[in-house]
Amino acid sequence: MRMSDLSRQTGVPVPTIKFYLRERLLPPGEPAGRNQAIYGEAHLRRLWLVRAFTTIGQLDLTSVRTLLAAIESQMLSLPGLFDVVNRTMLPQLDPRPAEATALGSARKDVEGLIDEYGWRVDPDAPVAIHLAQVLAALRRLGCDCEMDFFAAYAKAAEQLIMLELDMLSPERPDHAAAVARSVLLEVALCAMRRMAQEHHLALRFG
Amino acid sequence: MRMSDLSRQTGVPVPTIKFYLRERLLPPGEPAGRNQAIYGEAHLRRLWLVRAFTTIGQLDLTSVRTLLAAIESQMLSLPGLFDVVNRTMLPQLDPRPAEATALGSARKDVEGLIDEYGWRVDPDAPVAIHLAQVLAALRRLGCDCEMDFFAAYAKAAEQLIMLELDMLSPERPDHAAAVARSVLLEVALCAMRRMAQEHHLALRFG
Repeated sequence: MRMSDLSRQTGVPVPTIKFYLRERLLPPGEPAGRNQAIYGEAHLRRLWLVRAFTTIGQLDLTSVRTLLAAIESQMLSLPGLFDVVNRTMLPQLDPRPAEATALGSARKDVEGLIDEYGWRVDPDAPVAIHLAQVLAALRRLGCDCEMDFFAAYAKAAEQLIMLELDMLSPERPDHAAAVARSVLLEVALCAMRRMAQEHHLALRFG
Repeated sequence: MRMSDLSRQTGVPVPTIKFYLRERLLPPGEPAGRNQAIYGEAHLRRLWLVRAFTTIGQLDLTSVRTLLAAIESQMLSLPGLFDVVNRTMLPQLDPRPAEATALGSARKDVEGLIDEYGWRVDPDAPVAIHLAQVLAALRRLGCDCEMDFFAAYAKAAEQLIMLELDMLSPERPDHAAAVARSVLLEVALCAMRRMAQEHHLALRFG
C-alpha cells in the first residue's frame, strides 16, 4: 500500500508518518519509482504499536525508540527485554537527602515483602526502589498503609501477571506482543480500578 | 518555621518553594517582618503533597492545581471530587474516524462488563471510554484478551479499591488523604505488577 493508504487505515496523518520514517520509528518502505514507496502489513502493525505507546502508554519518542530497539534485539531474552521496558517506563525519582531515613525504612519493608512472596527480585532493582519511594511518600502524607494491605496488592498483582504470561507461547514468545500487552494492560488495570472506585464511592458516599 | 527550614525538611530547594508560592500551589506564610514569613505544619504537608503529585504521580502543574482546588472545595462530595481527579488524570485520547468501528465494538464490551459487575458507572464516562480505547488497541495489535480475562482484572480492582476505601472515615473523610492515597496507590499497584512480572518471567523464561 501507499503512504496515503497507511494514513487512511490508521488515521495517522501523512506528515506524522513522514516524521516517524525520518526518526526511524518506522522502517522505510519498498522503493517503487520516483518519490514513491510501498508499505506492507509490518508497517501497519508497527504504526499501530507506535501509536499505542505514544497515546495510551503516554510515552515520549525517546522511550518508544528504546522499546522498539529492545523488541527487535535478537540478543535479549524475555526477562532481559522487560528489564529494559521497566527501566524505560519508570520515572527517574531523585531521592533527596531529607528523605533518606524514611526511604531506608520503606526499602526494608519492600525487601520483607519480596521475601514473603519468594519473589526473585533484586531489592536494589529500580522497581523495588520505586515502590519504596511510593511507600515513603504515603507515610509522609499520613496515608499510612500497613504492610498486610500491600500484601493484598502483591497477591492481586501476581494473579493478574500469571494470567497475562499464560498468553505467551513458551517456545516462541512474541516479544512485540508481550511488550504491547504489558504496557496496555497496565493502563487497563488502572482504568478498571477507577471504574470500581467510581462505583464504590457512589455506594458509600453518594 | 522559615522558608529555609521548609526547604531543609522537605529537600525542596528554596527557589522551587518561591515558585510554588507565586503559582499559588502553596499558600503564603504568616508575615513576620520585612521579607520574612513563617510557615507551619499545613505548609509542610502541602509541600509534600505537591511533591508526591509531581514526582511520583508525574502530574504537570496545571493538573496539580486542579487537584488542589478540588481537594479544597467545600462544595464537592467524595464522588464529585474523584470525578474531577479521574478527568484530570486520564489522558485525552482523540479517537480518529479510522478507529470508529473497533472502538464501537470495544465500548459494547466495556458496557457488558459494567453490567456484569453491577457497577454504577456511566458507559459514556471518560474512564469507560478510556478502557474501551485500550481494549480496541489490544485487539488491533493482535494481543486480544477475552472478556473473562478482563473480568479477573475487574474483580481484583474491585477488591483493592474496597480495601482502600475502608481507610476513609465514613463521617469525615479526609479529601486530601483520599486523593493522595488514590494517586500513590495506583503507582504502587503498577510497581507490584512489574515486580511480580520480573519474578514470573525469570521463572518461566529465565
